[in-house]
Amino acid sequence: MNVIQNLKWRYATKAMNGKTVPQEKVDYILEAIQLTASSSGLQPYEVLVITNPEVKQKIRAAAWDQSQITDASHVLVFAAWDQYTEERINKVFKRNNEERGLPDSATDAYRNRLIGIMGAQTAEQNFHHAAKQAYIALGSALVAAAEQKVDSTPMEGFENASVDEILNLKEKGLKSVIVLPLGYRDETKDWLVEMKKVRTPKEELITLI
Amino acid sequence: MNVIQNLKWRYATKAMNGKTVPQEKVDYILEAIQLTASSSGLQPYEVLVITNPEVKQKIRAAAWDQSQITDASHVLVFAAWDQYTEERINKVFKRNNEERGLPDSATDAYRNRLIGIMGAQTAEQNFHHAAKQAYIALGSALVAAAEQKVDSTPMEGFENASVDEILNLKEKGLKSVIVLPLGYRDETKDWLVEMKKVRTPKEELITLI
Repeated sequence: MNVIQNLKWRYATKAMNGKTVPQEKVDYILEAIQLTASSSGLQPYEVLVITNPEVKQKIRAAAWDQSQITDASHVLVFAAWDQYTEERINKVFKRNNEERGLPDSATDAYRNRLIGIMGAQTAEQNFHHAAKQAYIALGSALVAAAEQKVDSTPMEGFENASVDEILNLKEKGLKSVIVLPLGYRDETKDWLVEMKKVRTPKEELITLI
Repeated sequence: MNVIQNLKWRYATKAMNGKTVPQEKVDYILEAIQLTASSSGLQPYEVLVITNPEVKQKIRAAAWDQSQITDASHVLVFAAWDQYTEERINKVFKRNNEERGLPDSATDAYRNRLIGIMGAQTAEQNFHHAAKQAYIALGSALVAAAEQKVDSTPMEGFENASVDEILNLKEKGLKSVIVLPLGYRDETKDWLVEMKKVRTPKEELITLI
């Protein structure tokens, strides 16, 4: 199956059946996230993979009681850096240069420009920027999950502050941005499964210049 | 090739060779964008596909003179809605209900809650939300392009206001958020092509709970 077929197959699953996604499929989806492009290669987010039933229950309570959170076997929480710091940026550049066999100073011009740009922005602007990068990874995760015939439901409908508290994100300098349950559709209970997938028509979405 | 292999193949191409991407491959990438998930299915963005050499030249001048913009055959500009309005939201819900053979009132409870949430937020908050949805589509586009063995370079490094002006986005209620040249790598000129792809190690990126 190719990307288009996989995107047609997937949908925001509204009811899951509790079956467990095999670990190798979860690992595949996580590797797609890890390999995703990000601005200056910073990957300014972390992914928490929740299988603990009590923690899933708490997140469900903070997410308008959406049943997929406990009926999924794995719940991914994408949490973006709350701020760009020199330390965080330096760590990425140091690793890149080491892995590429370059001196740590090799990319200083770019690094210093980046630190300057991020330093001139507010913490909130930087957080928005970091959150956007997590959304690119969400795009990869949705395609990878569909390729593995794993159902998923991207969710923004949760109390971010509560999820941050449940997962102790503040002390890690992170803020939750997306919740993505992974599991299998329950076709007998899901009102959306038989509905036509509707998208903005090409003539409205795309303009040729 | 699967998603992981495609993500490993791709990289942010720094030099392109001017060869033209066949129309069916561009269409494939655009269809992947069109099929991408978005919050409440709003797809709150448009994509401008630039092939006009003069317009590409102007965008290059507004993007730190990055050569890929003119050496790519197609330059995609993702432009997010500047604001959520009742009119825009109603249009999407109306289309969904029509295509699904439901009365227009079928999803009113959800629609009204959404209009309430968006109406309570500032235009800037709504724009950030819309922009994030475009980044999910960027994620799909990068995987789809790689599958088609088309090179691409996601760019945030451009003067948004200038690009908005070049493309008359303000009058369409849009703001540019990402530029994505599509073309083919020039292996003789691209310093990045031989570099190792480096990513945050799994033990730093992922936490199991």
